[in-house]
This record gives sequence, C-alpha cells and structure tokens, in this order.
Amino acid sequence: MKRFKIAITMGDPAGVGPEIIVKMFAKHNIYKYADVFVIGDLFPMLGAQRRISNKISIRPIKNINNLSKETGIINLFDMEKINSEDYSLGETGKVSGIASFEYIKKSIAFALANKIDAVVTAPINKHSLHLAGINFPGHTEIFAHYTKTKKYAMMLMGEKLKVILATIHTALKNVPQKLTAKGLTSLFELTDKSLSKDFGIKRPNIAVCGLNPHAGEKGAFGKEEEKIIIPAIKKAKAKGIKLEGPFPADTLFDKVVRYKTHDAVIAMYHDQGLVPLKLLSFDTGVNVTLGLPIIRTSPDHGTAYDIAGTGKASELSILAAFYTAIEMAKNRKK
Amino acid sequence: MKRFKIAITMGDPAGVGPEIIVKMFAKHNIYKYADVFVIGDLFPMLGAQRRISNKISIRPIKNINNLSKETGIINLFDMEKINSEDYSLGETGKVSGIASFEYIKKSIAFALANKIDAVVTAPINKHSLHLAGINFPGHTEIFAHYTKTKKYAMMLMGEKLKVILATIHTALKNVPQKLTAKGLTSLFELTDKSLSKDFGIKRPNIAVCGLNPHAGEKGAFGKEEEKIIIPAIKKAKAKGIKLEGPFPADTLFDKVVRYKTHDAVIAMYHDQGLVPLKLLSFDTGVNVTLGLPIIRTSPDHGTAYDIAGTGKASELSILAAFYTAIEMAKNRKK
Repeated sequence: MKRFKIAITMGDPAGVGPEIIVKMFAKHNIYKYADVFVIGDLFPMLGAQRRISNKISIRPIKNINNLSKETGIINLFDMEKINSEDYSLGETGKVSGIASFEYIKKSIAFALANKIDAVVTAPINKHSLHLAGINFPGHTEIFAHYTKTKKYAMMLMGEKLKVILATIHTALKNVPQKLTAKGLTSLFELTDKSLSKDFGIKRPNIAVCGLNPHAGEKGAFGKEEEKIIIPAIKKAKAKGIKLEGPFPADTLFDKVVRYKTHDAVIAMYHDQGLVPLKLLSFDTGVNVTLGLPIIRTSPDHGTAYDIAGTGKASELSILAAFYTAIEMAKNRKK
Repeated sequence: MKRFKIAITMGDPAGVGPEIIVKMFAKHNIYKYADVFVIGDLFPMLGAQRRISNKISIRPIKNINNLSKETGIINLFDMEKINSEDYSLGETGKVSGIASFEYIKKSIAFALANKIDAVVTAPINKHSLHLAGINFPGHTEIFAHYTKTKKYAMMLMGEKLKVILATIHTALKNVPQKLTAKGLTSLFELTDKSLSKDFGIKRPNIAVCGLNPHAGEKGAFGKEEEKIIIPAIKKAKAKGIKLEGPFPADTLFDKVVRYKTHDAVIAMYHDQGLVPLKLLSFDTGVNVTLGLPIIRTSPDHGTAYDIAGTGKASELSILAAFYTAIEMAKNRKK
C-alpha cells in the first residue's frame, strides 16, 4: 500500500501548536501510519521539545523527499520566520501572525503540487493574523481562497457524530438572514459528495436540523423551516440526495448518536452543532474543510493561550485530525 | 418523617400520559415514597391499564384524604370529563384539550389550598388546548397564571446538568431582542433563590452562556454579550449572587458535566440548553417551573402521538419528575 505523505503546519508559535505536535510524536508511533513533516520554525519547536520530552529530536530539513521515519525524530521544514525574541508564549503578535500564515500557504503550495497527500493544521490566532494585516477569519477561508474553492463547508467530527455547519462565525441575530434555500441546497450537495468521496459512505443519509425550537412547530415559532429549509431539502432530494428533516435539534442528536439513524447532521449555526459535538468528543474532535481539492483537517480547539507553555494541552485532537487525514487520503485514492 | 402527598395530572387523554402513569405504578414502588393520586378520567386510565398491565387496578376516589397505598392500585380523582367516544388516541381534539386543562386547574387548586405538596404533570397537547379555545403555550404559563406568579422560569434537569432557559418557545430571530439586562438579572436572582430553596444548594455557582458563537469573541460575532449579558451578570453579582460567564456554549457544557464546575447553566435560548440536556438525559429529563409558590415538575417529553397506545413510551422521565418533586418538597420543608 502506498505510504501517504502528510504535512502538519505548526500554527501560532505563541500557542499550544508546537507542544501538541511534540506530544503527538512523543506518545504515539506516527511513522507507522504515514510519512510526516512539520512546516514551522525551529525556535518554537525546540522550545516545546525542551519543555515536553527529552525523547524527541527536531530535525530541520530542506528537502521533503528525504524524511526521517525514525521514532523520536520530528522532520521540520524550517520556514525561518521566527527568532527567539520575536514572540512571547500566550501573547498575540504580528510576527506570529505572519509566520503562521506562511506555514499554511506553504502547505497549500505543497498540496496543490501533489507533493503531499494532506495537511493537518495546528491552531492559529485570529488576532495575531489581524495584527499582521491578514484578514481571514480562519484556516477554512485561507484554504478556500488559495485553492480557488467557491463551495466549501466546515465539518466537525467525533467518533459518534459528524456535524456540518450552515453558518459558522455569525452573530446569532444574523443567522436567519444568512440562510437561503439555494445556499442550503448547495451545502447538501457538497456534504453528500464529500461524505462519499472522503469518507467512503455511499449514498450517505443526512439529517437536517431546524433553525427554530421544535423546528418551528409548523410555523408557530418561526417560518424559516417552511420558507427556506424545507424547499432546500426538497430540491436536494429531487437530485437524488438522501436527506431527512428539518428535525427539532434538541431530540435529533440523541437519536443520531444512540441509534445511528444518520451519517451526518447539518446544523444551522455554530452552537447548535458544536454544543453536542464537543459534549460527545471534547478532546478528540476534528475539524475538516469539505469541498477543497486538497485534504485539510485540524484539531477542534484553538491556541489555548492560557495554558500555552505548560504542556497541559492534550495531543489527542491533533492526533485524531492526523488519523482522519489518512482516512480521507485512502478514500480519495479508491 | 412527614409523608408527602403528590398529585399527578393525567395530561392529554389521547397522548402517552395515561400509559406512562400506569407503567410507573406497575414497575416501581411508588407508595414507598409518597401518597399519590392521579387527577384525570376513568376511561383513558382504564384503557391504558388494559393495554399495559393486568397487575394494576384503577380506584376512583372522591376524597383525597382517603388514598390507597397498596401496590398495584392507582388512586384516581375522576374529573368525569371524558366519555369513551370523545377522543381518539394519537389525535388532537377539543374535548381532550378541555379535560387536560381542567386536571391542571384542579391540581393548582389543591396545591394552593395546601392539600397536596407537589404536582407532577403528564404531557398535554398545545393544539388540543387551542381547539378548546385555551390559548396558553404550555403548563408553565398555566401554572404561572393561576398562581399569580410574575417571575418564573423553566428549568430542565438531568442527573448531570440543570439548565435554565432565558427564552423558550421563541423563533430564533426574535431571541436577541427578547433578552434584556433587567430580565436576565431577574432570572439570575430567581435561579439563585430556587436552587437554594428547592434543591438545597447553598450559594449556588451559576454559569451563564453567551448568546453568540464563542460568546461573541469580544464583539467580533455579536454585541449582546457586552451590551446585555455582562451588565446583567455584574448587577446580579453586586447583589451577592455567584455567577460566571458569559461562556462560549460549545465548550461550557462539557466542562460543567465533566468537572462539576457549576451547579446550573443559564442558556439564552431553547436549543442551546436542550440539545446538551437531552443528549445527556434523554429518557430521564425533568422539567421544573422555578418561581412558583407551589411545586410543579413534569417529564421532559410531549404527548408522543406517534406511539400513543402502543405502550412504547418510557415511564422513566415521569418517574424522575416524581422523585424530583419529592426532593423539592423535602427541601422546602427544611
């Protein structure tokens, strides 16, 4: 079987990214599953290595065709963006913003040139990006932009649940106006296609949440189900997609998780989907961007500045993101 | 120790109410815990008894001072509102609406006259109430109205989580405008008082959810946290209430459940609070109305018309509601 090559972007140098990467290599046999290298900077990686594990060595490389597969060695594609004086753990900064952005762009370039099979991204800090004049809201939009992807979506997954968000970082009061039948139909098609292509689920069975309490209870608590969500479901079903809903969100998630009634759930907004996901898989949630030409996964947590440098951050989420990237690469090869 | 006297309202005759009551008495030793009688109608109770259990007898009573405590006997305060021809299982109807409303009013009268210590309500059907020209949205509002209660709130509780809702059956787009600092402060005070008085939690530690994703992330995704929720928290804290927040909802519930950081969570809207609650305690959730002069609990599910008559409905939620009512009665006695 082909060995996949996977790049891990180091993320914000001031956050927990370097630490969780070191922990991942120190505690798990990563090279058993793939060839792996980190795109980042030497100074923060060495700092994390010193704090976390004396079993790990950082090996700077310039050629990604010559990777070590020896346990304890982390291949680092050193971008040389950071000097020791340039950042402080747990603090936002322009240099950190620029550096973390450059790691991502490099990973996209490698992936688009087919030099790697997938990218796993450690967390970045939005405020540091902004300080550097980079105004993307997050990884998802950066990947979409540089891969020229128009239709994409964020999926969060744990062992028991896959949730796709119809809106993400939108103030709650703006959520209803952001939903359109056209946009939802397109999201349903994208989800159907990605679950099949990336996760090997043939004709996935997708559940759709209502927007309102009790999915509006026939219009008594909101009309968006009747005006937007139901027409979108009908249109997508007419195209052969297996969809059900809109379901009242409060009873749907238990049903999906307990009886495995559906392969994935479309949530209308951030907390509707992420509250159950994080309750079920706090340490092991994975964020996947659907619809990209390349594979990108990430841990389902942020830079965690409050614990950066302490070694407390768990590596389980980035490890799950790594396994998911391999699973997706295998399915795409089929 | 004083034995408490508890009334169970039968709920909608066409729903699962009569069945779950029969199951509750057939499978559990109810009289071990309290003196109990049902306020309802003979015909639906006999129908449920025939379908569910031949170990149960229905005993009509006119005097609630003379209750049987014999296992297998259900004391029924027969309201004589229903004849056999008046309703069909699983269907809405005017007669069912009137009857279920009368059971509730009778239970409130008993409670206000101190003849009973608590009311446990089986589910009613809003549409049947409406067909009968009774325009209350649900039990909570009926109890508030007939006990002349101005400040009340709905709490949903499971073994691991207590959630209080700042808004309930409100279309999502109207949620932001329904939140006011004054209203929230009042809700925080009510919650603090009820947790102490009804649940014996001295100086409860209460967590407050944000409205927006990431609790607005310092205003980036919505301003309600800064304009409404934070001022309300400050005001309540100044009055000595132990409150923290606003927290991003997606990470809060896991923290509360896993590390028991708080005694209860205030959610800003229906699905924010009920998605995690029902995921954690689907069959055993209890609905409690906070702020009433009398004690009222209920199972956390509806009339379930789709399975009414089949015996499939679980009695565990109404049983949990019964235990909770006793717990509250004990705490109020202290």
